[in-house]
Amino acid sequence: MSNTETFKAVNPATNEMLDGYFGISTKDQIDAAVSSAVSAFDVYRKKDKDSIADFLDRAAEEILNLGDALLERCHLETALPLARLTGERGRTMNQLKLFASVVREGSWVDARIDTAVPDRAPTPKSDIRHMLIPIGPVAVFGASNFPLAFSVAGGDTASALAAGCPVVFKGHPAHPGTSEMVAGAIIAAAAATGMPEGTFAILQGNTNAVGEALVKHPDIKAVGFTGSFGGGKALFDLANSRPEPIPVFAEMGSTNPVFILPDILEQKAEALAAGMAGSITMGVGQFCTNPGLAFIQKSGAADVFSKELTSKINEAPAASMLTAGIKAAYDNGVKQTLSSGDVEAMATGPAGSASNSAEARIFKTSIQNFNQNSILAEETFGPSNVLVEAQTKEQILEAARNLEGHLTATVHGTNKDFEGYKELFDILEKKVGRVVVNGYPTGVEVCHSMVHGGPYPSTTASQSTSVGTNAINRFARPVCFQDYPEFLLPDALNNDNPLDIWRMVDGQLTKSGI
Amino acid sequence: MSNTETFKAVNPATNEMLDGYFGISTKDQIDAAVSSAVSAFDVYRKKDKDSIADFLDRAAEEILNLGDALLERCHLETALPLARLTGERGRTMNQLKLFASVVREGSWVDARIDTAVPDRAPTPKSDIRHMLIPIGPVAVFGASNFPLAFSVAGGDTASALAAGCPVVFKGHPAHPGTSEMVAGAIIAAAAATGMPEGTFAILQGNTNAVGEALVKHPDIKAVGFTGSFGGGKALFDLANSRPEPIPVFAEMGSTNPVFILPDILEQKAEALAAGMAGSITMGVGQFCTNPGLAFIQKSGAADVFSKELTSKINEAPAASMLTAGIKAAYDNGVKQTLSSGDVEAMATGPAGSASNSAEARIFKTSIQNFNQNSILAEETFGPSNVLVEAQTKEQILEAARNLEGHLTATVHGTNKDFEGYKELFDILEKKVGRVVVNGYPTGVEVCHSMVHGGPYPSTTASQSTSVGTNAINRFARPVCFQDYPEFLLPDALNNDNPLDIWRMVDGQLTKSGI
Repeated sequence: MSNTETFKAVNPATNEMLDGYFGISTKDQIDAAVSSAVSAFDVYRKKDKDSIADFLDRAAEEILNLGDALLERCHLETALPLARLTGERGRTMNQLKLFASVVREGSWVDARIDTAVPDRAPTPKSDIRHMLIPIGPVAVFGASNFPLAFSVAGGDTASALAAGCPVVFKGHPAHPGTSEMVAGAIIAAAAATGMPEGTFAILQGNTNAVGEALVKHPDIKAVGFTGSFGGGKALFDLANSRPEPIPVFAEMGSTNPVFILPDILEQKAEALAAGMAGSITMGVGQFCTNPGLAFIQKSGAADVFSKELTSKINEAPAASMLTAGIKAAYDNGVKQTLSSGDVEAMATGPAGSASNSAEARIFKTSIQNFNQNSILAEETFGPSNVLVEAQTKEQILEAARNLEGHLTATVHGTNKDFEGYKELFDILEKKVGRVVVNGYPTGVEVCHSMVHGGPYPSTTASQSTSVGTNAINRFARPVCFQDYPEFLLPDALNNDNPLDIWRMVDGQLTKSGI
Repeated sequence: MSNTETFKAVNPATNEMLDGYFGISTKDQIDAAVSSAVSAFDVYRKKDKDSIADFLDRAAEEILNLGDALLERCHLETALPLARLTGERGRTMNQLKLFASVVREGSWVDARIDTAVPDRAPTPKSDIRHMLIPIGPVAVFGASNFPLAFSVAGGDTASALAAGCPVVFKGHPAHPGTSEMVAGAIIAAAAATGMPEGTFAILQGNTNAVGEALVKHPDIKAVGFTGSFGGGKALFDLANSRPEPIPVFAEMGSTNPVFILPDILEQKAEALAAGMAGSITMGVGQFCTNPGLAFIQKSGAADVFSKELTSKINEAPAASMLTAGIKAAYDNGVKQTLSSGDVEAMATGPAGSASNSAEARIFKTSIQNFNQNSILAEETFGPSNVLVEAQTKEQILEAARNLEGHLTATVHGTNKDFEGYKELFDILEKKVGRVVVNGYPTGVEVCHSMVHGGPYPSTTASQSTSVGTNAINRFARPVCFQDYPEFLLPDALNNDNPLDIWRMVDGQLTKSGI
């Protein structure tokens, strides 16, 4: 089986082709990868939890073992600085290790036992035992903006593998060399820890056809995706139109509104402006949680804030974006913003010399103009922000009420502000997955409590998160066993609790056996 | 605002119209009900957990207070015997009380706290706190076959209200009088316990238009449904085509295959036949978990089983089905089964004298014919079963591998059987929500461990259950709060754990404060 077509990676900082040809996966290769995942599933899902944890830990090590070569290739493919990529590699490894620890601890399977009551009238009560089992082979799509932490060995892959699901990964065409290296590390880790062939596979391609064929494959049982609204929504529709619809966990980004309340603006307008400038321009604004929208109330302090933010952005160095396509979309977003009624281009950073350099931008508009131009609420992926100036608290609350779903919302305030704007928090928690107080939405902690998700259109699955340990639940479903003889039960549900996990026994959480 | 159109209930046992006119909800009434639910949501979701639990308990009492009048009306509308309806009323009350206990206990909100590490390098770790919050106003559709336990105050309503979501209920047109009475009880309970107006509302109608308008309403955030595949799939497609897609938890029934293994057949063929006959004919076969398919291996004992099952079914009394439409669909299913290749009509119960009486039926066919006629695997809602006779174990396993998603699968066997057919269990747990050993799938225990759900096409949401306490999670979504001052946090996430619930603090389950 040979590839008929190939593509090459491009250095976005120079627009030059990079070394190496990457085969565009054919229909036969896609079928073979899924078929192999199906075979692997029956073996992999029955592996004991320590083995799966060891595999994930080993994958982290194998990625580290790729050494500087991985970081250098990734830098060439993404124009992201080596320091950032070094940090991102650490994050990727930490994610794998965190999921390994969740699997090793084992209580995530939500084991529940309701014991029998044979003499209950009028009918005996059966013994019923419940746990989560893996959903089946999962298709995962890598994001361009985190070529390590949300790509081949990223959070979706780590959580799906942790749940016991084989992964067929569609590599992002913007960093195929990076993808191939990391895929090799995972496959090596699988082999080294005795996981079946087909537990992980990568497909490559620079058109939508490969991903579409993957999602339409009848043996794929769920989809993980991080990327644009257009891409995520297309996969969601495709998955729902299958003869057997399957869940799509698409994280599609958002505008991440920031509300800066009056009292704190009085107290530290300049520091807030510096913080906002940093969050807006971090990583050339290429974060799902980049703050694209900020609301303030007109005041002297607001003018100080605007002035300082203008000055910071006017000095912010330009840098290359991830791809020429992303740069073109950014330019288009800037153009659309500028043509949305009464919008002022408040600040524009200096132009860069590298290819696909994006200048940071701040736009300013009135709440009235914002309300009349719905396009201003939409995401422009990149280092820009629309500063919306309101006159009254009620206008701020009304703007919050009109928000669509976002990943995050942020509120800066003093306790005095919070007392006065308590209602704002009640509104925002209905709109987003994460509400941040006196911080910035960029920087998504990988932990048990994180929710990186939110109501549509920020995701297609508001009841889930794609970052944090709760992400594992996306790739599992509950099953119960009624009146099983003990030798047929999975370990998690055995009487004496051999896995030493938390279980709900007759409604009470306990680690005791029965 | 007055209804322009009305409809009447029909007694399926006589085909006569019953007393009372029921208004078909107009577009304005639908909008008003949802609008009222939206207003109620902001108040209801902030009610303390004891108040919501009291409301659910009170609803159970108010239903009981309707007394015999409820049971009698329900009997007239459904032809279900009073004894069964008395039991179903008990189940309905128990469900409400069970969800009240879950809410009162409080740990279902999955509270998680990751404490701050201000001096972490290179960046400080924020304080992040996670919990489930209600998703918003929910549309619930009642089933015809459980006019109490899966209807107005049924499991979907109870779990949505328990989660903190107002419910706009679309009554099933087969029992509008019953629906109106139960809705009155819930509304009375809401008023008596101080819940806001709009927490619960009922809409009626005998066409699809009312339900469609409800699901398309932009302020409805999730849908609960129990009924036919056609109905559930239509709502699923409708919900996904909204500008904001919303989750649809549709339980659409299944054929619930039963596998009777060789050794147990040798030991108790007659008892198994009697048990199967009881499960097939219970409630005129009108259960989502009715066993419509049974697999046996040819043997002398299998012949004894067939003969005894034939004899039991030939004696099984006929009874009226729930509606003329359901009876017509049953007759049509029987006709389709009989025309599916080499199918033998093994047994037919005596005809009934009441209107819409369904005769119990057993069909028999070979595994070869079964494999060639996919229609035989589909549900015929009613008291019928297709007995499939195989020659070999491998044929049994292959049939299991080819199953679509079902709510349940059942295996009868001795330990010797189970040792020999271990693979069957591995296959079945991938196909269903509940695997039953040496029992019958009818009879769905309401408890913490129950999974009443399963892969598509048995449901549109294989990651959930519609019976048991886990059902509450369908109507909630996670949100996290980053660096909140304590006075803004919900009680569930306060430092000193005032609700005394289980929380995951820095990865450890505990009831201790921090």
